[in-house]
Amino acid sequence: MIVKGPLIQAQFVETFILMQFNHQSLIATKSNRIVRAAQGRPVMEFGTRRAHGADAAVYGARASYIAGCVGTACTIADRNHFVPALGTMAHSWVQSFDSEYEAFRKYTEIYPQNATLLIDTYNVLKSGLPNAIKVFKELKPEKMGVRIDSGDITYLTRECRKVLDEEGLTDCKIVISNSLDEYIIRDVILEGAKVDSFGVGERLITARSEPVFGGVYKLSGIWKNGEMIPKMKISENVEKITNPGFKKVVRFYGNDHGKALADVIMLRDEPLPDGKPFEIFDPNAVWKRKVLYDYTAVDLLVPIFEKGELVYKEPTIEEIKTTCAEQVDKLWGESLRFENPQTYYVDLSKPLWNLKHDLLNKYGADNL
Amino acid sequence: MIVKGPLIQAQFVETFILMQFNHQSLIATKSNRIVRAAQGRPVMEFGTRRAHGADAAVYGARASYIAGCVGTACTIADRNHFVPALGTMAHSWVQSFDSEYEAFRKYTEIYPQNATLLIDTYNVLKSGLPNAIKVFKELKPEKMGVRIDSGDITYLTRECRKVLDEEGLTDCKIVISNSLDEYIIRDVILEGAKVDSFGVGERLITARSEPVFGGVYKLSGIWKNGEMIPKMKISENVEKITNPGFKKVVRFYGNDHGKALADVIMLRDEPLPDGKPFEIFDPNAVWKRKVLYDYTAVDLLVPIFEKGELVYKEPTIEEIKTTCAEQVDKLWGESLRFENPQTYYVDLSKPLWNLKHDLLNKYGADNL
Repeated sequence: MIVKGPLIQAQFVETFILMQFNHQSLIATKSNRIVRAAQGRPVMEFGTRRAHGADAAVYGARASYIAGCVGTACTIADRNHFVPALGTMAHSWVQSFDSEYEAFRKYTEIYPQNATLLIDTYNVLKSGLPNAIKVFKELKPEKMGVRIDSGDITYLTRECRKVLDEEGLTDCKIVISNSLDEYIIRDVILEGAKVDSFGVGERLITARSEPVFGGVYKLSGIWKNGEMIPKMKISENVEKITNPGFKKVVRFYGNDHGKALADVIMLRDEPLPDGKPFEIFDPNAVWKRKVLYDYTAVDLLVPIFEKGELVYKEPTIEEIKTTCAEQVDKLWGESLRFENPQTYYVDLSKPLWNLKHDLLNKYGADNL
Repeated sequence: MIVKGPLIQAQFVETFILMQFNHQSLIATKSNRIVRAAQGRPVMEFGTRRAHGADAAVYGARASYIAGCVGTACTIADRNHFVPALGTMAHSWVQSFDSEYEAFRKYTEIYPQNATLLIDTYNVLKSGLPNAIKVFKELKPEKMGVRIDSGDITYLTRECRKVLDEEGLTDCKIVISNSLDEYIIRDVILEGAKVDSFGVGERLITARSEPVFGGVYKLSGIWKNGEMIPKMKISENVEKITNPGFKKVVRFYGNDHGKALADVIMLRDEPLPDGKPFEIFDPNAVWKRKVLYDYTAVDLLVPIFEKGELVYKEPTIEEIKTTCAEQVDKLWGESLRFENPQTYYVDLSKPLWNLKHDLLNKYGADNL
């Protein structure tokens, strides 16, 4: 993202932009990992009660939907941001009746189109499942499901599936929840759990495995008398050295497979590479070079505000969701790996690299 | 916390209460750990840009102040919640000038009462520190400090302290920041870093080491015809089995040292222990027993709403901060250890334990 404007105005928006960008990118990234682990099974966002405040819940639900979840139990995200609200019942529903059977029956009468019954309030296999089956057979809801929120998921879902199938309820879905994340979902699927969909709460809405997304907002140039004077911050910590100047981000896609090959940060006035062989190099190990052939280069930045006017047509949430899925699909599998993924190339153009090193020398980085 | 009311009303508030409670308790706990690691040195909350949305930033800043931080860089938390706003300069301030010296001089002219200069934009020891010393000597601000946001904290602060002292600037404070938490603060102090205060950002505002606080909200009884019918949820996961009935939480303090000995969850109508020897036992290992003598027992719950009316005088943030410090001080050191702390006793009274086991037997927990 580039913000260009009077210094004080650009400073005013810094913290708010960073916070929104960092938070929503964080939750979208975590959600996409979880959705990919589920291998096509729907994932529902159930994390509101463990979110870091109301914005975390609502914008987190929105980000999770964009990243591939099918909906959220946060109803405000539906009302304000068109994220489909969905959910099952609570343990308190079951407890508030004299018997589990009565609770299930009442719920199914109210939701005959789609009754998902929470079967672990007392005992999944000895009480919850038999009561659910009894109600399903009596009331024949259009769609039906059972949810399990505790215990050994693999064992319980396999047992439930067996009994449900024996009882002729092959259409009954099994939903699980209980501190899930991409790792647990991957493992229970590998173990042969019989799960149709997942409700994921606290570990999604807090991005528990890594709750910090480290985006920064850096001054990279000052205009003086119509001329841009590039600026940079130097640091002993190499990753804290900024890239100077007014820039753009160009993504290279391979024409044969459509996958993203690399991003190259270029100076704003460099021409967009036009398909001729283009050499990229690792900015921290310049001897690591690679020539790109047969690619399409796309300038990723689009204008949003120009001279204070909104010039961008905001896409619908469904359009954003589609774009997100398309973009994830353009990454190679090895970059999507949950642990130790292959680092996606983000390189600098030669002119930008030269500018950076000229400034590093000027500011005495040789003394670092 | 106890919520008693018509079922639907009690359900409506569930998610919001849980979210506020979980989030703010989480950040207060993390902040208090960080503050304790700093051993009396002031800790400032600097995390807004990495918070999970605006509420996370503002209520997180408030929670961090209650837990012992001296203030926040989140100015909205000052305006809305009386958390003192404070901060230093940004790298962009330094970069926006033609030279670091000029940037420092201008800032000190504007803030002669208290000028803390960020000295790591280019090179701490060769550029930032000499420029800061020059400006301090020229302008003689009332209070002065330098902030370092990158590099080896221990080495750099020791070098800076040495040079500042040699230059007669023994009053100049050294502030550090850069992905700090309780562990790093503890370690750099042990290594002999010369730090006067800490700015702590992302790891505080996201509680990075454990970003989930797992409070729950459970139905524990239903009133029918004026009689309370205790309810509980059973689970294979022992920690998910709830405590039935209308209850209170009683904290026992030792009269000789004032420290908290244990909390005991009792039925609401049990009398408050009056100082006679009181036997507590571990609810999960009932052979672990202990008799408390010479204690004062306090009912921790106070009425906030009664029949929909607010009956509680909300304390000021300063009063809450004081209470927090007093309560932390009543815990033994071993319960406050950062890793593998001694578990504080939270036991059940005998009548509550009996009720729980009667219900467990009734619901067939023997089959679990």
